Amino acid sequence: MRMVDIISRKRNGESLSIDEIEFFINGYMEDEIPDYQVSALMMAIYYKGMSEEETAHLTNSMVQSGEIIDLSSIEGHKVDKHSTGGVGDKTTFIVGPLAAAAGLPVAKMSGRGLGHTGGTIDKLEAIPGLQVEISNEDFMKQVNDIKLSVVGQTGDLAPADKKLYALRDVTATVDSIPLIASSVMSKKIASGADSIVLDVKTGSGAFMKTIEDARELAKRMVEIGNKLGRNTTAVISNMDQPLGFEIGNANEIKEAVQVLQGEKIADLRELSIELVSHMTILANVYSDVETAKKELAKLLDNGQAFEVFKQFIKAQHGDTSVIDDLTKLPSAEFQLEVEAPKEGYVSEIEAEKIGLAAMHLGAGRQTKDDSIDHAAGITLQKKIGDYVKKGEVIVELHSNSNNMESSKKLCLEAITISETKPEKSPMIYEIITE
Amino acid sequence: MRMVDIISRKRNGESLSIDEIEFFINGYMEDEIPDYQVSALMMAIYYKGMSEEETAHLTNSMVQSGEIIDLSSIEGHKVDKHSTGGVGDKTTFIVGPLAAAAGLPVAKMSGRGLGHTGGTIDKLEAIPGLQVEISNEDFMKQVNDIKLSVVGQTGDLAPADKKLYALRDVTATVDSIPLIASSVMSKKIASGADSIVLDVKTGSGAFMKTIEDARELAKRMVEIGNKLGRNTTAVISNMDQPLGFEIGNANEIKEAVQVLQGEKIADLRELSIELVSHMTILANVYSDVETAKKELAKLLDNGQAFEVFKQFIKAQHGDTSVIDDLTKLPSAEFQLEVEAPKEGYVSEIEAEKIGLAAMHLGAGRQTKDDSIDHAAGITLQKKIGDYVKKGEVIVELHSNSNNMESSKKLCLEAITISETKPEKSPMIYEIITE
Repeated sequence: MRMVDIISRKRNGESLSIDEIEFFINGYMEDEIPDYQVSALMMAIYYKGMSEEETAHLTNSMVQSGEIIDLSSIEGHKVDKHSTGGVGDKTTFIVGPLAAAAGLPVAKMSGRGLGHTGGTIDKLEAIPGLQVEISNEDFMKQVNDIKLSVVGQTGDLAPADKKLYALRDVTATVDSIPLIASSVMSKKIASGADSIVLDVKTGSGAFMKTIEDARELAKRMVEIGNKLGRNTTAVISNMDQPLGFEIGNANEIKEAVQVLQGEKIADLRELSIELVSHMTILANVYSDVETAKKELAKLLDNGQAFEVFKQFIKAQHGDTSVIDDLTKLPSAEFQLEVEAPKEGYVSEIEAEKIGLAAMHLGAGRQTKDDSIDHAAGITLQKKIGDYVKKGEVIVELHSNSNNMESSKKLCLEAITISETKPEKSPMIYEIITE
Repeated sequence: MRMVDIISRKRNGESLSIDEIEFFINGYMEDEIPDYQVSALMMAIYYKGMSEEETAHLTNSMVQSGEIIDLSSIEGHKVDKHSTGGVGDKTTFIVGPLAAAAGLPVAKMSGRGLGHTGGTIDKLEAIPGLQVEISNEDFMKQVNDIKLSVVGQTGDLAPADKKLYALRDVTATVDSIPLIASSVMSKKIASGADSIVLDVKTGSGAFMKTIEDARELAKRMVEIGNKLGRNTTAVISNMDQPLGFEIGNANEIKEAVQVLQGEKIADLRELSIELVSHMTILANVYSDVETAKKELAKLLDNGQAFEVFKQFIKAQHGDTSVIDDLTKLPSAEFQLEVEAPKEGYVSEIEAEKIGLAAMHLGAGRQTKDDSIDHAAGITLQKKIGDYVKKGEVIVELHSNSNNMESSKKLCLEAITISETKPEKSPMIYEIITE
């Protein structure tokens, strides 16, 4: 078998066999196949796509390239939740405790990462004392004890995906739905869960700008999961504006806790309940989504989900007093209020610009070596559809540096105020199960 | 400027600017842009093509990457001839002397190379004593004196093309007409001629299998030449079977000499006259193609072209006695006659298989380090349209090894004998001048 023939076949629009896909992934990992042949193949896939079979084979080859987490010592049906990424997305801190409160074991391994704000692990570290590096044994035991643990990823999961992604990033071959789908799913499957719920974001602030692209990606990921023996459901959700009101690290923890305490922060609560409802269906906890949603709302309103969150913080050596009194969370020295430049309806809040503004304040990393300021961030005072008067505060910036001009400018650019009230978009567009 | 953005723009079907093309070629030559980005760009070009402007810019950037031969010390209008390659193509040995006899200075630098038979230089070396490595000064002087010199290529012409071609070869991105066109033209333009005549082969034995592809390639090359200040004409010629009757090295020299001596070897003589006629038109020697062809036929028939060839052999220290007595050329120890397996009309002679058979006999190189046997080769006794009886000799094999079975098998596979007489295809399909 020769890599040039594999490239040539894909270039001509043919489907690659399982042997060809394994040959290329294994050869690439063993440095027998060079980057320049792989990037040519990626570009051919960009144009010619991959069949359902090929995508599943590619995903599986990437899973097999590294460690596969064994969660079998955890009792019960393990369901993982994954989001394709958006601004202000703190659902993990709600979904985890809520699912656990409903009886699902939640064994979550998360990353740090580059971006507008920190990753899940960075955000958790806003809680003083919280440990995210604990032994595998303690991790499993904690999930069996209190149903929830969130730790930093240690294993070398799907290293072929990491190597491929780094190459795609510099060869303009990221934007391929089958490649995105297999990349996401390889990591999820290597993480060892029995079932998977995907939150596929769409809208101006998401990677998938249109509902059609989001649907296509969701379908491909669900296909892969189901083909590789993981029941998978995808929720297509709205990312036309940041999720909730808080963007940052400590302030996102704060907002998640508020939802766990029963506060009706509409979009955030709705999405969290939606995601957990599908997790409970996959795990056969509830028999239908409507019942699930009702029961889950109760678990938020009666404080049970919040109680699990506190147990989790305590088990991982975090200071639970900051959860009981949210004012104790890290807070920034300087605040800047951004005022509405005119009267009208907020009709657009470009999530990416708001995210960038948060990064400028210190909430995120531009390069791997940057440090995160847990206290920095943005609080939206208004969301799409709200009416504002000229001069009214629309956004509040928090930073430990007194220079917030570039962030203020970005926020003003991000927000459009119109004379007419914008149409309300749904939070949840579609559920994909096959 | 970032290479990833250049790839992305081409991927989206946009045209690259002259600055972007120079940035990429220069960066690639300076090892600042890695192979894996270039191969991704090549694959994007495979799908999205290049405009006339882009192709000319790419060609020019590749020309500028290395040495450009300065032929200004040679008097007169220098016209180069280039063939896209076929089996049995010995036209250079006829075209050179014939053009020189018509008064054109012919300063030809040629290569060795891999393939079914040797390259121009290998074939010439079948003539005992002939020197192909002579100083630049002597080369120019010889052309001014006798109008003809053929030497081995010494300069580093279009090194960017070499580097790109080697990459395309292993990434399934060779088959792109704009990339083929710019590759060929970069070398021709760096060779320093004022005008260029291209012999674009089409048919079962050519790289361009269809007349449409050949026309497209011819048009692209002519466009590039004209845009870069070299008047260029392309002749689209038939390669449905080997050219002439001889395939090898010494035997190809023999057949070329026979045409130079006025023998009417139909296809070879017709193509040679056609090619030279366009060279003379570009150099303003004759005013129209019909007149040119008549005059050129005279120069073959009256021995003047042959005389120039002998002067050229002598000037480069070759033994002219082998030209006067062709039996003195290297000949092989063993001969094998291949007989027609049945009666009928020869309807197909697959040139590639005949070429492969010649290589098996020792006439060509498979790898750079193989040596060439100048005496080895194949003589066709029949061509398409000829009638043969069962058992009649159709092909003669010449080798210095007594084992010619694989070549015999290939020849029998290559030749189809049918009951009905095949339609006659023209030797020359089209002339492209713009």
